[in-house]
Amino acid sequence: MDNSSDTRPIGIFDSGVGGLTVLQELLVKFPNESFIYLGDTARVPYGTKSPATVERYTIQVAEFLLRQGVKGLVVACNTASALGLKALRDHSSVPVLGVIEPGCLAAAGLLQEDDASQTGGGMLASHRIGVIGTHATISSGAYAWHLGRLAPGCRVTSVACPLFVPVVEEGWTSYPSAALLIRESLQAFIDHPVDFLILGCTHYPILKPRIAAVLGPATTLVDSAKAVALSLNKLLGLVIVPSPTRNFVRYYVTDSASRFREVAVRFLPQLAMDSVEVVDL
Amino acid sequence: MDNSSDTRPIGIFDSGVGGLTVLQELLVKFPNESFIYLGDTARVPYGTKSPATVERYTIQVAEFLLRQGVKGLVVACNTASALGLKALRDHSSVPVLGVIEPGCLAAAGLLQEDDASQTGGGMLASHRIGVIGTHATISSGAYAWHLGRLAPGCRVTSVACPLFVPVVEEGWTSYPSAALLIRESLQAFIDHPVDFLILGCTHYPILKPRIAAVLGPATTLVDSAKAVALSLNKLLGLVIVPSPTRNFVRYYVTDSASRFREVAVRFLPQLAMDSVEVVDL
Repeated sequence: MDNSSDTRPIGIFDSGVGGLTVLQELLVKFPNESFIYLGDTARVPYGTKSPATVERYTIQVAEFLLRQGVKGLVVACNTASALGLKALRDHSSVPVLGVIEPGCLAAAGLLQEDDASQTGGGMLASHRIGVIGTHATISSGAYAWHLGRLAPGCRVTSVACPLFVPVVEEGWTSYPSAALLIRESLQAFIDHPVDFLILGCTHYPILKPRIAAVLGPATTLVDSAKAVALSLNKLLGLVIVPSPTRNFVRYYVTDSASRFREVAVRFLPQLAMDSVEVVDL
Repeated sequence: MDNSSDTRPIGIFDSGVGGLTVLQELLVKFPNESFIYLGDTARVPYGTKSPATVERYTIQVAEFLLRQGVKGLVVACNTASALGLKALRDHSSVPVLGVIEPGCLAAAGLLQEDDASQTGGGMLASHRIGVIGTHATISSGAYAWHLGRLAPGCRVTSVACPLFVPVVEEGWTSYPSAALLIRESLQAFIDHPVDFLILGCTHYPILKPRIAAVLGPATTLVDSAKAVALSLNKLLGLVIVPSPTRNFVRYYVTDSASRFREVAVRFLPQLAMDSVEVVDL
């Protein structure tokens, strides 16, 4: 392996299928990189579990990917990023990118496609930023902490929307009850509108049109999948050596591969899931 | 230990807190028995997972309870009963009672408080019986199979209602969106009414008033918690020796005890959760 290229894959993981929204962005943006995706479908969801359990699961999944010889790790799960990232960084021999910092950078206007407008968060001090996520992500305070650091003075309102994940996983998004549930869950942002709403869970981009319909055009929705792709772009060439060509995209799950395919098609309809292997962590 | 009394506890387990609806019935009906409850909260839910994974988890949980010296096992989880019971009975040194046979017996009119009317299912041949449960329970066909055996000729309609569990776990039951979701999920039973509807998941009794409001008085709801208590009553004295006095009720969980308490209070408000221990299976 010379210094100018590194064909090793990038590992990306999530508690289940939600992280495929992140993978989808990465596959488009990095056509020469190989990826290994792992969905911990036997233990999904992480978002209702305790910090200690989420941290333990995060380390176990990462260890599997590290054994596959990845050159970098993307933690596509917000809950794992909120609760397991510190321990994972202490543990990992390769760079680790979570989803929370990218999402916060994007909401603070510090992450742009063209890198032209990185003028700092000062002028954004009066922005109102909303964050939605799982119980575990919101309770961790990780988003509020990073936003306070990146955009001091902005006002942050965080709300857990724990029913969004099952609604997406079950493909229930087009039912009238789902529309009503979204409205009820986002009542705080209807009563007190925000300038940006961070979709702090990889499942939530699937609900983007419905969330936008409830909140209207005055609120910009920040999709962390896009933010992660922009952030990974910054790492490639700096701390991760790029690959000249894509060799493979591989999928691993901890529960049934057929169930994964069935649900995954709602996230990545265009993806031919031709290699999904089951592993026992 | 003499033959006339056995003070060993009865083990009862569920994927999470839902089985507390069964425990509640058992605590009232068997005031002299000790119980050990285990909620596999680190791996909840079971209902969206594959048969092989559910079977593996069921055996692991049962092994823990067997090591605690239980004299009988109650599998309070419908999914574990549907998919893990056969393997567990091969594995267990003590009698194992699931929730599915009791629910089917009750729906077939073969399980009565007073045992007076056990005249068989023949006269019920024209009954229409509905079953609702998780994906895994419904896909297993376990209810349809037992009903076909116990009440041949009855017409069985099975519908998965996978969003009921998260709605209950999140305490979202009183929101208008939950009422609408219940109505949408039960549309098949509104279009084609049934005489009995088996609530084939231990979480569902929490939604009983709302389900009854949707289906009206012509449909009798069969709560498997009550059916399990009646069935256990038949086993005590036959294959399980009763205890003369209750010594303890103990709770174990595989994830955070505090999160369990928080959710459990929605199921068993009167219960003082004074001893909840975390175990790693």
